[in-house]
Amino acid sequence: MNVLSAEQVILDAHYMARALELARKGVYTTHPNPRVGCVIVRDGQVVGEGWHVRTGEPHAEVHALRAAGGQARGATVYVTLEPCSHHGHTPPCADALINAGVGRVVAAMQDPNPEVAGRGLQRLAQAGIAVQSGVLEPEARLLNQGFIKRMEHGLPFVRVKLAMSLDGRTAMASGESQWITGPAARANVQRLRAQASVVLTGADTVLADGARLTVRAAELGLDEATTAQAMSRPPLRVLIDGRLRVPLNAPFFKAGPALVITCVTPDNQYPTGPECLVVPGVEGQVDLRSALVALAGRGVNEVLVEAGPSLAGALAQQGLVDEYVIFVAGKFLGSAARPLLDWPLEKLADGPQLKITEMRAVGDDWRVTAIPAPSADV
Amino acid sequence: MNVLSAEQVILDAHYMARALELARKGVYTTHPNPRVGCVIVRDGQVVGEGWHVRTGEPHAEVHALRAAGGQARGATVYVTLEPCSHHGHTPPCADALINAGVGRVVAAMQDPNPEVAGRGLQRLAQAGIAVQSGVLEPEARLLNQGFIKRMEHGLPFVRVKLAMSLDGRTAMASGESQWITGPAARANVQRLRAQASVVLTGADTVLADGARLTVRAAELGLDEATTAQAMSRPPLRVLIDGRLRVPLNAPFFKAGPALVITCVTPDNQYPTGPECLVVPGVEGQVDLRSALVALAGRGVNEVLVEAGPSLAGALAQQGLVDEYVIFVAGKFLGSAARPLLDWPLEKLADGPQLKITEMRAVGDDWRVTAIPAPSADV
Repeated sequence: MNVLSAEQVILDAHYMARALELARKGVYTTHPNPRVGCVIVRDGQVVGEGWHVRTGEPHAEVHALRAAGGQARGATVYVTLEPCSHHGHTPPCADALINAGVGRVVAAMQDPNPEVAGRGLQRLAQAGIAVQSGVLEPEARLLNQGFIKRMEHGLPFVRVKLAMSLDGRTAMASGESQWITGPAARANVQRLRAQASVVLTGADTVLADGARLTVRAAELGLDEATTAQAMSRPPLRVLIDGRLRVPLNAPFFKAGPALVITCVTPDNQYPTGPECLVVPGVEGQVDLRSALVALAGRGVNEVLVEAGPSLAGALAQQGLVDEYVIFVAGKFLGSAARPLLDWPLEKLADGPQLKITEMRAVGDDWRVTAIPAPSADV
Repeated sequence: MNVLSAEQVILDAHYMARALELARKGVYTTHPNPRVGCVIVRDGQVVGEGWHVRTGEPHAEVHALRAAGGQARGATVYVTLEPCSHHGHTPPCADALINAGVGRVVAAMQDPNPEVAGRGLQRLAQAGIAVQSGVLEPEARLLNQGFIKRMEHGLPFVRVKLAMSLDGRTAMASGESQWITGPAARANVQRLRAQASVVLTGADTVLADGARLTVRAAELGLDEATTAQAMSRPPLRVLIDGRLRVPLNAPFFKAGPALVITCVTPDNQYPTGPECLVVPGVEGQVDLRSALVALAGRGVNEVLVEAGPSLAGALAQQGLVDEYVIFVAGKFLGSAARPLLDWPLEKLADGPQLKITEMRAVGDDWRVTAIPAPSADV
């Protein structure tokens, strides 16, 4: 392998950054596929760009090759994920690149899909094309955290959205909780929903708040074209309801298709209702890991959890949460108010370590992102 | 008054920013005086700079005039607070500026001290010197929030420092709480203490945690010269102890001079102990507003409250808090842990509105600054 000049390393990062920008355009639509972008460069000029829009449609490389036409010959191809080597809905991109006669392929990361996993790059190299992987890899991984988690662990990436006061409370003791955060935070939540494969909630939330958890076009705060994209692939709304307590006339069910995950036989409860998925459970409590495994089996990459302290607390206690997104409102709800998570702990050492990765203002509220910190014994 | 050119407005802001930078050097030492900086500019050159170091020593203007010498004649003087017009420990700065023959004086703000309150600038104007006030005024006010509050309201600026987990808890139910936040946050707290006129705490904290609340040179994280300055003017440690429950052999009392504010007659308890200040109280509970008024009467500009949820909650409930500085550790302590403030509220509408003014990373922890939000009915 040739040693790259410093100049080339900078150029590679530059074009990969553009490819990532293109990949991000698919953030609302590619599910269950990964978000992928591609840039083709010849003699210092971008001759083709493309991004994957939705499953069944061409991959990013194919869009870019079409745009480049004959100029792809001898060109360098930047792609945010290793080109595929297998026949899925579409023929392998590796073959398309070989047929187009490209000179070099730079990938941000290997495809974690076991059907690819290096074979795409290998195939290109065997055809005499210079290949490289790992340019802006952390950024590329971040964009497809869910797809990667599903491929590598058979579980979706679980993001728990919480909204709390500055003193860590979600609602008054009475349950009163509406409008803790402002419109900018709510738009932010709408976009988190639209990006997710699945929005997951629990029976308490649906019963107490009449929650529907839909994506509402007017509240996304996106331009018209992006709003249309987001609305074309709404997330599946999933209800964890171990005892099937939520009646069919709940607003949640009236708001559109939904999936119920339960651990009781649903025949009596929903003879003509939403799809039910039965997973193991104990005493009417759905085994949450089983539920997530089942969702991953259906191609779910990213789960957004919007639930009360009980379901969110249970997921947290079982180590099933990959990221917390906490909207913090500038107010105190006081010491009698409801806790962020139902998770009684006795010793300080039992408290889970988190790494706060970001805090930023969202309108008058603030958004805190935190991930479970790697600890010595995990 | 002449209309200033845009160029002059920019230059004025530039030199005032430098004067504020100088003023900030006094952040640890000027108590009970305000922090003031001064820059003298002639023909586009800085010919003198000065800042007020400590009470009894020369004011910023005098230092700057000494540095400028004869070059002060016809020069422009930038000062972060209106020059004084009264005889205090030192003669009036307005007279010194007039005697030096300066041409123009630009102040960031009027002196809120009722003994000055515009008279300094008036005196200068009467001597034929061009005067102006209000350049970078918000920044100047921020630097002397305590002095301004004391002058305008007869109360100190009260900053409540809290440390909590991401779920808004300060300690386990058992009381276990050591080392929630890391060394960078602790150094930050040390600097907050060193800046304060007074560090205020309650009997519970001193009894349960053996808290001393001293400033420790090694933990300030400052350079040697600044550390020496900070240590030369330690904040007075003040204990609110309505029933005089804290014994004289508590680490708090052994750590140096302290003031006890109580509402019982202290004769029996402290025959030879620390100074006691008796203020009104009900059933052994010190009236907190009276305590703060008494402190302001002693020249206290800034109070840093480091106390448990009970005293901090009482100050918050009584509307006596000007700023919350909350250190947030990346961990959950769980729903059984102790609350941020003892302040039970029933209705959402009763919860105080806050404006989060800053969130920033401090080592592995985060620091949130919030102020009570102005509401319609206040």
